[in-house]
Amino acid sequence: MNYLITITGGSASGKTTVAQKIKSEVKNSIVLRLDDYYKKNVENLSYDQLSKKNYDHPFAFDFDLLIENLIDLINDKPIEKPIYDFSIHDRLDLTEKIIPKKIIILEGILVLDNAKIRELSNIKLFVDTDPDTRVIRRIQRDTIERGRSLQSVVLAYESNVKPMHAQFIEPTKKFADLIIPNGGKNKIVIEFLKNHLKTMTNIENLF
Amino acid sequence: MNYLITITGGSASGKTTVAQKIKSEVKNSIVLRLDDYYKKNVENLSYDQLSKKNYDHPFAFDFDLLIENLIDLINDKPIEKPIYDFSIHDRLDLTEKIIPKKIIILEGILVLDNAKIRELSNIKLFVDTDPDTRVIRRIQRDTIERGRSLQSVVLAYESNVKPMHAQFIEPTKKFADLIIPNGGKNKIVIEFLKNHLKTMTNIENLF
Repeated sequence: MNYLITITGGSASGKTTVAQKIKSEVKNSIVLRLDDYYKKNVENLSYDQLSKKNYDHPFAFDFDLLIENLIDLINDKPIEKPIYDFSIHDRLDLTEKIIPKKIIILEGILVLDNAKIRELSNIKLFVDTDPDTRVIRRIQRDTIERGRSLQSVVLAYESNVKPMHAQFIEPTKKFADLIIPNGGKNKIVIEFLKNHLKTMTNIENLF
Repeated sequence: MNYLITITGGSASGKTTVAQKIKSEVKNSIVLRLDDYYKKNVENLSYDQLSKKNYDHPFAFDFDLLIENLIDLINDKPIEKPIYDFSIHDRLDLTEKIIPKKIIILEGILVLDNAKIRELSNIKLFVDTDPDTRVIRRIQRDTIERGRSLQSVVLAYESNVKPMHAQFIEPTKKFADLIIPNGGKNKIVIEFLKNHLKTMTNIENLF
């Protein structure tokens, strides 16, 4: 049985940074992102309709496929991971073959909202970053890296990101084994995790 | 140099439980409580005056003595720890000799509000428990174990405990390396700490 570390937190909280830092310290690990599991556009919505969808609600994600993939990875079976293209708001027909590793790192906004994922997780982490810090990062990322207008980023933030955070993400803090303050800037948690994994007797060749 | 683990959190958050759990798992450790460092009644206030003091403000504690004691313990020197008697709201003339151990566990409500203590700490933990859960525990403890009236507990809570928490304790969450949700009920953090301490190369004979 491989070991599942689940990392959640609000939009732009530093989840990816924490996940990547663990990965860079633990050779025998892979990162799986909830973002890759956005649902396929089966209703053939137009680009305009897709742009207006609520991408911060649990319904936006294909949790069935994610759970199926997680169970396979935990049981050391390779998976065909979906590939999601943000520019067209849809999943591609292509998949990516993922070979399991000893440590599976799952990161995403709503991963601890799902009871089955909580049950599969060996460690559950919540990256806690102030909402003002998160919104600044989000605005920077979406305007600079994704070429969106400030107006559209603020609209999405106020209509979906913020209310969905309060309703679905913030409450999952209760399910976390540990809360990591100041996300990516936190060094000791990586040391903690490394030492924890190191002393787990049944996992070898981690580093 | 001995190793300092500092544990903070609100009143009745579960700090003592976490500290005692670490102690029971790590043989070579001692627990130091901020509560033992309430200031001596040098102004000769009456019992009634003492009862009305704000015991949740940083000024209520003798941080100078605590820091002196911590530095000695970290440098493997024994200390004479003050003994505070809650029933008379004053420090006794007696002291208790404390022999240093490899791991020093400090716990208390305002320990991370003090910059020098933060600097001395190797690990800083914040025990995060809902205010309603904390106030229920506090009411139960103070009425049942300490024989106080519900009225007096609620008055102290509303006039001192709650505002001091907001002003001095809650902000120290920012200084924590890790936040522990649901205080004493959290098992994985003890495993984490144990494994972390176990792999620290320069500390032997811990367990």
